[in-house]
Amino acid sequence: MIIDCHGHYTTAPAEAEAWRKLQVQALGDPAQAPRKAQLRISDDQIRESLEGAQLKLQRERGTDLTIFSPRASSMAHHIGDAQTSRVWSEICNELVHRCCTLYPENFAGVGQLPQSPGVPPETCIPELERCVKEFGFVGCNLNPDPSGGHWKEPPLTDNWWYPLYEKMVELEVPAMVHVSTSCNPAFHTTGAHYLNADTTAFMQFLTSDLFKDFPTLKFVIPHGGGAVPYHWGRFRGLAQDMKRPPLHELLLKNVFFDTCVYHRPGIELLLKVVPVDNILFASEMVGAVRGIDPETGHHYDDTRRYVDSIDWLSDADKKKIFEGNARKVYPRLRKS
Amino acid sequence: MIIDCHGHYTTAPAEAEAWRKLQVQALGDPAQAPRKAQLRISDDQIRESLEGAQLKLQRERGTDLTIFSPRASSMAHHIGDAQTSRVWSEICNELVHRCCTLYPENFAGVGQLPQSPGVPPETCIPELERCVKEFGFVGCNLNPDPSGGHWKEPPLTDNWWYPLYEKMVELEVPAMVHVSTSCNPAFHTTGAHYLNADTTAFMQFLTSDLFKDFPTLKFVIPHGGGAVPYHWGRFRGLAQDMKRPPLHELLLKNVFFDTCVYHRPGIELLLKVVPVDNILFASEMVGAVRGIDPETGHHYDDTRRYVDSIDWLSDADKKKIFEGNARKVYPRLRKS
Repeated sequence: MIIDCHGHYTTAPAEAEAWRKLQVQALGDPAQAPRKAQLRISDDQIRESLEGAQLKLQRERGTDLTIFSPRASSMAHHIGDAQTSRVWSEICNELVHRCCTLYPENFAGVGQLPQSPGVPPETCIPELERCVKEFGFVGCNLNPDPSGGHWKEPPLTDNWWYPLYEKMVELEVPAMVHVSTSCNPAFHTTGAHYLNADTTAFMQFLTSDLFKDFPTLKFVIPHGGGAVPYHWGRFRGLAQDMKRPPLHELLLKNVFFDTCVYHRPGIELLLKVVPVDNILFASEMVGAVRGIDPETGHHYDDTRRYVDSIDWLSDADKKKIFEGNARKVYPRLRKS
Repeated sequence: MIIDCHGHYTTAPAEAEAWRKLQVQALGDPAQAPRKAQLRISDDQIRESLEGAQLKLQRERGTDLTIFSPRASSMAHHIGDAQTSRVWSEICNELVHRCCTLYPENFAGVGQLPQSPGVPPETCIPELERCVKEFGFVGCNLNPDPSGGHWKEPPLTDNWWYPLYEKMVELEVPAMVHVSTSCNPAFHTTGAHYLNADTTAFMQFLTSDLFKDFPTLKFVIPHGGGAVPYHWGRFRGLAQDMKRPPLHELLLKNVFFDTCVYHRPGIELLLKVVPVDNILFASEMVGAVRGIDPETGHHYDDTRRYVDSIDWLSDADKKKIFEGNARKVYPRLRKS
């Protein structure tokens, strides 16, 4: 079985985006805000939005289950306030829940949190509980920068985040560290901001004792860990210079990387330097890069091909990457 | 001959830092500001600061010439105003010039620019001209984020920077894109901010037509290009999705990467995916990571060993990386 731990509902029917547009337009005048019930999307529309996209790609690439969350760039936590984010997150999570209900073999849900800049993260707990307890979701996406590229929140290792972590531990759900759209013109969203956030989060973890406080808390760092595996020597050396414990002791029981790296040499590097127990298969599809690589004739994001092609990786290790590690990091998958 | 294109004067005598401290203390009261002449450092002090550090490492590692600039983290352009940065940059550049004068075979200078948040970059032109024309410097360090981690400046591809680029082109000097200390608690300086800036700058170049306007302008992206080579497929795919030209046409005549990647698998990836003409040898010494890797018994930043060990790289290609490419990117090296 092949579990893809990083998929987004980037193909939701246009009605969802239109509803969001109304919500944003009404920001200055709450009386004009659309009601949730105004959003009408049929089951057939949802089937159609998935059949030609995520489900088609699953079939073509031979993957089975996608751990599936709302479109990351559309979370846009910087827009409006906590109430804005609350209603929009509910809508996005309900849509993902409907996908999972229609195709329970193909999708397991991951929730968008109703974060808002400067608002304590514990305000996200009710929606996290709803996602896990009512919808059977197996994780959440946590945005370390709800400001959208201005980085005003305390580091992920600050007590600021602890109430949310307590709930995550209680519910046995990991978080994927995932920013949203950059509204800072310096940062391209998918080409810079996403990767920078991955590197930033890893270094926050490396310099803290967060996992002493939460020994079972788990994070997935997407996009192959940003710059981290490529600079594995730098990070090992920085930890050593700072008299921190070795990385395996410091954070590798808690921090995992996905395989969203879109060329074979990158995947090979990841598999060479990061312990196999810390790597989860993923493709980010339908995601940031949609084209076909003229050098291979295959989609850049068909990451299964790269992993399959690594002939020095044992079958047992491939099984961990494709399935076993995901079941460990997302224990609710077993229960679902 | 081996040219290391990325070295910083991180071992300057303590008097320099003490002078800076006085300068910072006097920020609210310019009458208290120290005069430049108050900083007294003898030639012997400079010799001593280099003999046991950069020169010792050059000898031990068998490298010849270091392209040498002031300590990057101490540029701290966010402190004070343009006048603060002007005087501090002059001091730092004069110290590097003295290093180069005392050891002309070992060092070629690169200047710190007196940038200041929100201040037009053309204000840096006089100091750049002084460095190049009076001191014989061969390049400059350009900080894309003088705010120190708040990223408030326009992208490097904005007209905002053009007057400086015109002068760089006229003087035939490249810039290394190099941020300074992060004062944003989200970003660790050497573990996140530096790498993020590298990735950010590359993506700014990728999405612009800057090099149509300046066909001979050249940038070196340090730290192995941040996350870029590891995600080479992602960047190729993003450019393709955006209908941009292929990378070699779009920016590889203008953008170069150094080899400051502190483990062999990282260097191997860099050499595999980035064209050999775009890679310049560097070690960032004495720099971000100073320890010895217990896995190899050698310094993490002894990057020559990694390059030497790549047996599929031809001697001609190694010569390009160690010397030839630096001479192309820094044409004033030939004249110095």
